Amino acid sequence: MTRVGVIGHTGYSGAELVKILRHHPNVTPVLLDYRADGMERFQYSPQVLREEGLRVLFLATAAEVSIELAPAALDAGVRVIDLSGAFRLRTVENYERWYGAEHPRPDLLAEAAYGLPEFCRARIAAARLIANPGCYPTAANLALGPLLEEGLIDRAAGVVCDAKSGVSGAGKKPTAQTHFCEVTENLSAYAVLQHRHVPEVLLTSGLEESEFSFTAQLLPVHRGILETIYFRASRAVDRDGIAAVYRRRYQGEAFVRVYEDGRMPDLQGVAHTNYCDLGIQADPASRRVVVVAAIDNLVKGAAGQAIQNMNLVLGRPETEGLL
Amino acid sequence: MTRVGVIGHTGYSGAELVKILRHHPNVTPVLLDYRADGMERFQYSPQVLREEGLRVLFLATAAEVSIELAPAALDAGVRVIDLSGAFRLRTVENYERWYGAEHPRPDLLAEAAYGLPEFCRARIAAARLIANPGCYPTAANLALGPLLEEGLIDRAAGVVCDAKSGVSGAGKKPTAQTHFCEVTENLSAYAVLQHRHVPEVLLTSGLEESEFSFTAQLLPVHRGILETIYFRASRAVDRDGIAAVYRRRYQGEAFVRVYEDGRMPDLQGVAHTNYCDLGIQADPASRRVVVVAAIDNLVKGAAGQAIQNMNLVLGRPETEGLL
Amino acid sequence: MTRVGVIGHTGYSGAELVKILRHHPNVTPVLLDYRADGMERFQYSPQVLREEGLRVLFLATAAEVSIELAPAALDAGVRVIDLSGAFRLRTVENYERWYGAEHPRPDLLAEAAYGLPEFCRARIAAARLIANPGCYPTAANLALGPLLEEGLIDRAAGVVCDAKSGVSGAGKKPTAQTHFCEVTENLSAYAVLQHRHVPEVLLTSGLEESEFSFTAQLLPVHRGILETIYFRASRAVDRDGIAAVYRRRYQGEAFVRVYEDGRMPDLQGVAHTNYCDLGIQADPASRRVVVVAAIDNLVKGAAGQAIQNMNLVLGRPETEGLL
Amino acid sequence: MTRVGVIGHTGYSGAELVKILRHHPNVTPVLLDYRADGMERFQYSPQVLREEGLRVLFLATAAEVSIELAPAALDAGVRVIDLSGAFRLRTVENYERWYGAEHPRPDLLAEAAYGLPEFCRARIAAARLIANPGCYPTAANLALGPLLEEGLIDRAAGVVCDAKSGVSGAGKKPTAQTHFCEVTENLSAYAVLQHRHVPEVLLTSGLEESEFSFTAQLLPVHRGILETIYFRASRAVDRDGIAAVYRRRYQGEAFVRVYEDGRMPDLQGVAHTNYCDLGIQADPASRRVVVVAAIDNLVKGAAGQAIQNMNLVLGRPETEGLL
Repeated sequence: MTRVGVIGHTGYSGAELVKILRHHPNVTPVLLDYRADGMERFQYSPQVLREEGLRVLFLATAAEVSIELAPAALDAGVRVIDLSGAFRLRTVENYERWYGAEHPRPDLLAEAAYGLPEFCRARIAAARLIANPGCYPTAANLALGPLLEEGLIDRAAGVVCDAKSGVSGAGKKPTAQTHFCEVTENLSAYAVLQHRHVPEVLLTSGLEESEFSFTAQLLPVHRGILETIYFRASRAVDRDGIAAVYRRRYQGEAFVRVYEDGRMPDLQGVAHTNYCDLGIQADPASRRVVVVAAIDNLVKGAAGQAIQNMNLVLGRPETEGLL
Repeated sequence: MTRVGVIGHTGYSGAELVKILRHHPNVTPVLLDYRADGMERFQYSPQVLREEGLRVLFLATAAEVSIELAPAALDAGVRVIDLSGAFRLRTVENYERWYGAEHPRPDLLAEAAYGLPEFCRARIAAARLIANPGCYPTAANLALGPLLEEGLIDRAAGVVCDAKSGVSGAGKKPTAQTHFCEVTENLSAYAVLQHRHVPEVLLTSGLEESEFSFTAQLLPVHRGILETIYFRASRAVDRDGIAAVYRRRYQGEAFVRVYEDGRMPDLQGVAHTNYCDLGIQADPASRRVVVVAAIDNLVKGAAGQAIQNMNLVLGRPETEGLL
Repeated sequence: MTRVGVIGHTGYSGAELVKILRHHPNVTPVLLDYRADGMERFQYSPQVLREEGLRVLFLATAAEVSIELAPAALDAGVRVIDLSGAFRLRTVENYERWYGAEHPRPDLLAEAAYGLPEFCRARIAAARLIANPGCYPTAANLALGPLLEEGLIDRAAGVVCDAKSGVSGAGKKPTAQTHFCEVTENLSAYAVLQHRHVPEVLLTSGLEESEFSFTAQLLPVHRGILETIYFRASRAVDRDGIAAVYRRRYQGEAFVRVYEDGRMPDLQGVAHTNYCDLGIQADPASRRVVVVAAIDNLVKGAAGQAIQNMNLVLGRPETEGLL
Repeated sequence: MTRVGVIGHTGYSGAELVKILRHHPNVTPVLLDYRADGMERFQYSPQVLREEGLRVLFLATAAEVSIELAPAALDAGVRVIDLSGAFRLRTVENYERWYGAEHPRPDLLAEAAYGLPEFCRARIAAARLIANPGCYPTAANLALGPLLEEGLIDRAAGVVCDAKSGVSGAGKKPTAQTHFCEVTENLSAYAVLQHRHVPEVLLTSGLEESEFSFTAQLLPVHRGILETIYFRASRAVDRDGIAAVYRRRYQGEAFVRVYEDGRMPDLQGVAHTNYCDLGIQADPASRRVVVVAAIDNLVKGAAGQAIQNMNLVLGRPETEGLL
């Protein structure tokens, strides 16, 4: 059994990670404590990490903590899969704009592989440091990527991504926004056009910020993301035409399911799974297209994808422990 | 006290209508039974309606029932406010396309006033037959109308309306779609690009179908609609610029509230009220604009707006019984 | 218009209080700020309260704050209706046992009237200080009181009260217990046999602690309390017999509704109202009886009852502003 | 792989059954269609069942359908595990009283083993026909059984079981009671003292009907049952004393977990598992005891327990496919 470390197992993503890892046939999770006061940080010294015999370390921590902890692990020769936003953007300028904080390690920003296996598989397998994607960008990039590769989207007309997420995406810390009474029987939009997940979509898809409108909304559900994506096709194309593009691109991909019959995915259909489900509607005459993407934000949007990345890193079958 | 009749008071819209009417200071609701088997239809004969002394008759019935019942009331000189889709479109061709049924009364389709007071006040006050708007179009038209009037929307780039509705919008009849277990912890899209409320938006706003992309989604909440609307502005405009347009247009309107400070409306903020709340976000450089509109689908989206129309018809203050 | 003060209007009970007061035809609420740091406490000095011309002051504050603020108001001749548990118990010993804190004002504990109008109307009308009942005891006492008065309950066999409450009963402060993800799709019991609302039931009903088993449970709903109460009747009695007792006792009471036909109350039936609904089931042969009581915890269980008490204090009709 | 048949896989219990069976390492589920019109009943003729090579047939059908289908399977030598109430009671008189219908097969009522493994393991392993317990009685009997065996319950004082269930317990058929809008933000009691699951508790526990008060309540959750059970102990006993009884009785039982530290179980803790969790509170002085039991109604309350029974029937480890 390969030993892998987990820091931050009390949060929602970290707990999900440990739950899935415990069912993995070839990996044993080692839970490491982290105290913000620094007293117990010795645990993550290169020496300790080596003694633990860890081959991979998952960081399910806040971005500022990940920035601090990742280097020691890398120095110890442990490969790091970070679930925070600490290493997802490529430059310190971009990081400072969207996260409102300085980033002390431009070298690691440049080095980190973006952990979306369907698009970055080779880089991930070889990387020391993997930035596990945000939940919203995972769905958006899986929906948009193949269509942009084919030049099927009229970028000048703009792409709209209307995203809705369950409350676990907001983290476990109790806040006014996550109080049951504020969420139940409600729906609210936040960070309209300004969500820090936007640059991840731009970096992966190649869209310009001016071409991409993104709104996040908080659903009265525990887990799940549904994104409804609108664009104008660059040529007349019907649902089958779109589906064919996805089919070719995702042939052999275990975790992307395309609905070819006009049905639309929903949250229950992906809950507790690592799937991204895609549904399509199109009007060839007007070139209006709608794609609906659904994932479980805690699985494909966080812990499941992290394990998919771990499997790549360890040379295991990519679906191991995830089906 | 003015006597007004209500047919269909057992459905969600009809029950809401009766509840609000019972608090109205100048109107008494008279509940009329309707049986689909025809045995009790005599109740709606012109004579009976006259004997009841009704000045207005609300139909909170299915479209096909409204088509059948409205003529008798009109013949009896009773003004009709119909909450169904029976008389919202202008032509039989349009009705047949979106409702999949023939319409036997092209004359009434042509005659009916569309009951969106903020845009059709004068016609409503004078009309015999008022087609109370659908819930989705109410929010969409209130959000889009002033901006289209000002030429502020680049129609060629397309307008997206991503709509989410509580389950009461699907009616009281138990179906697989409204079963608690299918709705809770879920979100699902339906009728993508094909919802029968689309033509109401087109007729009121003047948008072409090819310019308007609409998706409806079923939320795990009882009541409320949130619509997130995306478009490209025809000129550089910021949030204040958009807000100023709304402010001018809706000055004096009691039921439209514009958030000028970047906050976004939510469902709880409009629940059990006749308000439509509007929030705005804009990026002048790229001309991307997002408007979020929230209403209670059973009030401003149905019963409350119907009473607003009734007040107009009866020459009462438009807000009477609604604040 | 009579001026009444409200301290603590940002919590759920306080906000509900202000909402209802604003519709009251003869009262104007004056919102007073309170800062825990003491800098602004001068506002509640006797002089300021007199200058504001307040006749009643509502305290929707934590018990320890109420204990501190009530005396100044009383000194200024302002009558106080306190929504906390600060003055509900009669002795310092009892207070210390259930609230785990010392109580500095045994005189006020002894003086305060318990604000359950259906049982303490005369005392309330004459009192300077009114302890508005807890939400759970309100339903329990309304259900049990008349039956105990009639000697209809076999106390030796014990009385069970299984209570379920919406999350607003836990207050607005975000905690791990009120996080949406911990509450949704869940039900949990807490403070079993040890809830601090128990002594209120004992004091009002005359039951001994050894005769009364109480469990509170947190429901995934915003508002509402349902209590299912079990006891053995002291003589053979059927549903009609129980209903007759309630009917006689609550004749003329505006806010207690007894279901005599075997139907059972539910939360939706009392939401946003000041009603307590009671349903009954009984098996005369075995003398098993079940009574189900439903209230809105924020209305009859807090703000509505406080206003009912205010009406008594001011000599207004008890239902004013509450129907 | 052992072949086992499933009839009724479209309902909630049947679907859960198939989902779990598909992960079972030694069993293959064979889905059989059933049409109420009789045209396809030949599928269940002894011959067809034999040709399918089924060793066990699960019936996840309504009681009246199970009564009809079970005999053919038994005649074909296939062992039957029935998830309905058709064979849970012992006599036709009892069946007729609680199910309001005649039962044509008193012989099978007498023969069937009640499928609660923790109490009837030996009989189940040898039985041709197993009546899988109702969801409510499963939790109640697991909580009450050990304590009654030890004589720890003062039966004369009565036992109260206040039960709350998720909506999936009401079945998949859409009804007014299961409509989302009627369930959300609600809690309602039904079948008070008259629920058809009561006799299952009486038969297994040995309690008299006059000693047992049971109320069922519909929670706004998808899955899960929480039962709060109240009784008077026959001797002074504290929480540890109760826990010790459970510990001895359930030593070696894989699916019963006893909380010995005063914590209380909740629905999330047992969701998607075959566990029954038990929490305890007791006051030795007054002998009041409260036990809280939680199960997932679709797993330990239906499909999981059915598979536990199947494992017994097939001589497999009882936990196979269930952990």
